[in-house]
Amino acid sequence: MNLWKKNLIDIAPYVAGEQPDKTDFIKLNANENPYPPSPLVTSAINSFDTESLRKYPDANAVPLLKALGEYYGVPYKNVFAGNGSDDVLALCFRAFFNSDKPILYPDITYSFYPVWCHMLNIPYETLPLDDDFNIRPEDYARENGGVVICNPNAPTSIGRGLDFIRMILDENKDSVVIVDEAYVDFGGESALPLLKEYPNLAVVKTFSKSRSLAGLRIGFCIAGDELISALRAAKDSYNSYPLDSVAIAAGCASAADEDYYRSTLEKIIATRTRLTAALREMGFVLPDSSTNFLFASHPEYRAADICGYLKTKDIYVRYFDKPRIDDRLRITIGTDEEIDALISALQEYTSGGLNPLAGR
Amino acid sequence: MNLWKKNLIDIAPYVAGEQPDKTDFIKLNANENPYPPSPLVTSAINSFDTESLRKYPDANAVPLLKALGEYYGVPYKNVFAGNGSDDVLALCFRAFFNSDKPILYPDITYSFYPVWCHMLNIPYETLPLDDDFNIRPEDYARENGGVVICNPNAPTSIGRGLDFIRMILDENKDSVVIVDEAYVDFGGESALPLLKEYPNLAVVKTFSKSRSLAGLRIGFCIAGDELISALRAAKDSYNSYPLDSVAIAAGCASAADEDYYRSTLEKIIATRTRLTAALREMGFVLPDSSTNFLFASHPEYRAADICGYLKTKDIYVRYFDKPRIDDRLRITIGTDEEIDALISALQEYTSGGLNPLAGR
Repeated sequence: MNLWKKNLIDIAPYVAGEQPDKTDFIKLNANENPYPPSPLVTSAINSFDTESLRKYPDANAVPLLKALGEYYGVPYKNVFAGNGSDDVLALCFRAFFNSDKPILYPDITYSFYPVWCHMLNIPYETLPLDDDFNIRPEDYARENGGVVICNPNAPTSIGRGLDFIRMILDENKDSVVIVDEAYVDFGGESALPLLKEYPNLAVVKTFSKSRSLAGLRIGFCIAGDELISALRAAKDSYNSYPLDSVAIAAGCASAADEDYYRSTLEKIIATRTRLTAALREMGFVLPDSSTNFLFASHPEYRAADICGYLKTKDIYVRYFDKPRIDDRLRITIGTDEEIDALISALQEYTSGGLNPLAGR
Repeated sequence: MNLWKKNLIDIAPYVAGEQPDKTDFIKLNANENPYPPSPLVTSAINSFDTESLRKYPDANAVPLLKALGEYYGVPYKNVFAGNGSDDVLALCFRAFFNSDKPILYPDITYSFYPVWCHMLNIPYETLPLDDDFNIRPEDYARENGGVVICNPNAPTSIGRGLDFIRMILDENKDSVVIVDEAYVDFGGESALPLLKEYPNLAVVKTFSKSRSLAGLRIGFCIAGDELISALRAAKDSYNSYPLDSVAIAAGCASAADEDYYRSTLEKIIATRTRLTAALREMGFVLPDSSTNFLFASHPEYRAADICGYLKTKDIYVRYFDKPRIDDRLRITIGTDEEIDALISALQEYTSGGLNPLAGR
């Protein structure tokens, strides 16, 4: 009886980050951009010819590939686009990591890497960050089935330069190396200039963070011919049309508005500088961030307690109840107004003033 | 040297259907709806608050689940939405078909089923349609790891009633049975009323055909609690946010415009009736269609030749160079004007008049 249940997928249910039901709160827990997308995106969507929606989208999102190829100065045949960088990364794992040897990535990094390894039966090994949360490139000089480096890394916020990526590439000529650059636009150094030298390098990027388009699901990969061909094959064995026509049009519009994009990045970086200083002033310890978030601990207060206190002030930051990082908070850079509210709340908390949880 | 290439995915490259580079042609080869989506969809997109796009979409597209739950009279927790029914079906295969026994589906049906089996290492067996291209339900009374029935079937266009689906379900209490209803809205009979009796039934539908939204990528599944839970788990191991915010809003708008939807379906069905009669008048042989396309052969002309001839008239229909169906054309129901042009071209061809290829 009910034998069909035996064949259902057997994986632990995913526990999503907290999304409060209310609407009037300060949301600094999902690394979303606090600023809206470019006005050109608004025009592209609000004047979109919906009659065209009766037809399938361009299967490879070629207009967007061309816009991105032009933007980054690469042939568009070396660009692949998908339904958010999660879709693109999952397809990369499937397309590139078909080895019996374990793939390598840091113990503290984007939490979806092990999820895809489990889904795709890819063996993996995690290599510990050092005590300052830096990736040790020398650790990656060992036999493997592939390497994934998130740079700047999440949730540590630490970005490393091209020399660092080059060290990893030079030790891994026989593996595909994915560099996940979800956050690179906020001041990291992109590995794109290395593509000409390393045909085994795949650089993955997203419109979700720096281009304020998390809601539209656009991610992409830039790589050499062989890797892009493998990605296309992986896509076509899953879903021929991952990007809808509106997203393609809006993505093109976003890529066309360089001034708006730059000014948004500058605002976020300026706010980040200000918040970093304010946190340090209050005794928080945190590395310089190359991303749109900070990763901070405080020697005198438990991160979980601070997180709980901020919730009482309707401010949501991210706390990870995980080994090595359970003393930290991941704080997304919001608008200046949001960050002012955060700073006030934290000043109140760390000064031991009104807050009943403080002063342990 | 280049050992990384050994670990790339090894599957045959997909060959896409022909998409002529020109724009002024009659496209009856992709089963797209000839009419635009509802004006409410246009409003939803053209007045979409793009500022919200900086945030991630609702991970489960709950507003759309609620709209669909209400539309079909089921609790919204029994609805799952994804990036087109290809995404939903691929997730169904992964979520439901984890058996060593082969899954079963017809030899002539939607061409993506074997693609997903290969991708997911699912063993499968295809069971031949009878000579009239009907599925024989008694064939499915054998041990299996799951069953997939496209009803109405593609590319045959033949729809079967609830008794037929019930026969298959009654023989398969130990397997999950997926009924792929991509085309059911054009006059087929949906299996949704059987959901209460069969917790192992999953019904998959799409906005691409009847709702004129192929360009937006919205598919969904309605099923019992266990199957939907398994689908959610499969989704969360691949891509948390498959549906973007604009698609969610537009999908809700489409579901709200019943009058427009009905009138579009009626127009397509009327044109289908007219084209069916005209084709039979010219000697074509074809079953009654429950879909938005016809599947026709002609005893005196080769399908490939007719297809080639129509191209010279800038009319594109679909020809499959595959065993058992290489004598047929799959013709999408277009607007009345498009179908008039098709009928004229075919009359010219079958009367052996001006056409150099005819009269073999």
